[in-house]
Amino acid sequence: MFTNRRSVRIEWGDCDPAGIVFYPRYFAMFDHSTVLLLEHALGINKHALYRTYEFDGYPMVETRARFLIPTRYCDEVVIETSIAEVGRSSFRLLHRLSKDGALAVEGFEARVWVVRDRARPGRFKPQPIPPEIVARLTAS
Amino acid sequence: MFTNRRSVRIEWGDCDPAGIVFYPRYFAMFDHSTVLLLEHALGINKHALYRTYEFDGYPMVETRARFLIPTRYCDEVVIETSIAEVGRSSFRLLHRLSKDGALAVEGFEARVWVVRDRARPGRFKPQPIPPEIVARLTAS
Amino acid sequence: MFTNRRSVRIEWGDCDPAGIVFYPRYFAMFDHSTVLLLEHALGINKHALYRTYEFDGYPMVETRARFLIPTRYCDEVVIETSIAEVGRSSFRLLHRLSKDGALAVEGFEARVWVVRDRARPGRFKPQPIPPEIVARLTAS
Amino acid sequence: MFTNRRSVRIEWGDCDPAGIVFYPRYFAMFDHSTVLLLEHALGINKHALYRTYEFDGYPMVETRARFLIPTRYCDEVVIETSIAEVGRSSFRLLHRLSKDGALAVEGFEARVWVVRDRARPGRFKPQPIPPEIVARLTAS
Repeated sequence: MFTNRRSVRIEWGDCDPAGIVFYPRYFAMFDHSTVLLLEHALGINKHALYRTYEFDGYPMVETRARFLIPTRYCDEVVIETSIAEVGRSSFRLLHRLSKDGALAVEGFEARVWVVRDRARPGRFKPQPIPPEIVARLTAS
Repeated sequence: MFTNRRSVRIEWGDCDPAGIVFYPRYFAMFDHSTVLLLEHALGINKHALYRTYEFDGYPMVETRARFLIPTRYCDEVVIETSIAEVGRSSFRLLHRLSKDGALAVEGFEARVWVVRDRARPGRFKPQPIPPEIVARLTAS
Repeated sequence: MFTNRRSVRIEWGDCDPAGIVFYPRYFAMFDHSTVLLLEHALGINKHALYRTYEFDGYPMVETRARFLIPTRYCDEVVIETSIAEVGRSSFRLLHRLSKDGALAVEGFEARVWVVRDRARPGRFKPQPIPPEIVARLTAS
Repeated sequence: MFTNRRSVRIEWGDCDPAGIVFYPRYFAMFDHSTVLLLEHALGINKHALYRTYEFDGYPMVETRARFLIPTRYCDEVVIETSIAEVGRSSFRLLHRLSKDGALAVEGFEARVWVVRDRARPGRFKPQPIPPEIVARLTAS
């Protein structure tokens, strides 16, 4: 399955008065890692997905994270993101954020491929992931 | 167990280009709900906890959320937060964010009562929650 | 000119390792104050503006702020926002954020009423503010 | 004077429902650029400043920005930051964020070198910038 790896520098503004990363910031980092992984795996970005497919996003339906080691301003962390499973209209990813080689935060997410639901304005409904997208996500 | 309820207005800046809340923002809302619940339950704020106890925070060790209904700019949502369990040095909370009475996001969190770990600079270690704090958190 | 006033509670997650508000957060507060002022002045929200008018937003073209007194977790501040000037296709606002009655942050902003510029994809161009909107913004 | 240049990729989560960067995010980018410039100019980070000097931060006292061209998800922008002036206890910086070579956002900031004010808890007071810091900031 596809994997993406990037280095992130913890910023002053990511941290709270205890001096450690305010944990919602980790989810913003994970979200960007997912976006990057999909761009790399698919060879096109989200703008192009909207134009090319019947597609209105891949919103999160479930996420989970464990926080093992605090990180703080000036830390250089590595986020390794990989696709864990691709289903009919959903897919799962894993994020492993490490500091000096030690696992600091572990994240899991389940997302769903959606289109806008004409029957319920403001809502989305799952849509089968196009076969060529599945092929690329599951290519090793 | 203690429960806290507040109304939150989704802001323009909480939302992403798909027009729905950028999900890390929900965790920022939940974090504030937890802070408020603890202030109300304990009758003192985090500043006072730092001054009164051997205490260096109650960082998140695990969190989980399910996203059922998207919310967007102008939505008025209600967040109901309750303590689910109080252990020796950890406690668990539940958040239920609803829109027009329907559950939109459900969050779970496990936090630990910590002090700074002198043996490992930059790290924290669990500390038994003071009995009077336990008493207040578990009071109905 | 129209004025809006609201009370804001500084959150733990708004603050940085120095224990004071990370200043970009003030701009997020000011942005929401502007949105609220316009909703109140016009009697309709941004969604309705998009539907009702040839309108694609009122993006910021210039902002300025002075930071006089730090604010921190648990502070209750008041933000008073007022329209300072309404021009042909732009308008100016002032924000005064105070703590215990003393001015802590002062913000100024200039925004422009825009539509998408068909000639330059991804860009906007100024558009005269509809007369009934001008009338409402300048009503006292 | 010292200059710092970095490339920033606009993230999905930086953008609002109009699809453009939510402007407070530019200030977070500028803040990090300032932190990086000072680290590079001084050869030490903020943690070390706190340990080495009578120093409690360099908070913003005034900022100003002009927004000329919108930026959005997937844009690669360049932020060039330079020190504009170093005074007795304050200094000024300029940020120029450009996209495809064109100036998109221009930021100006004035910061002050401070220590905690023992006479007024929770407040800071200006402190002369140490001469070796001035020398490094003004070196070309």
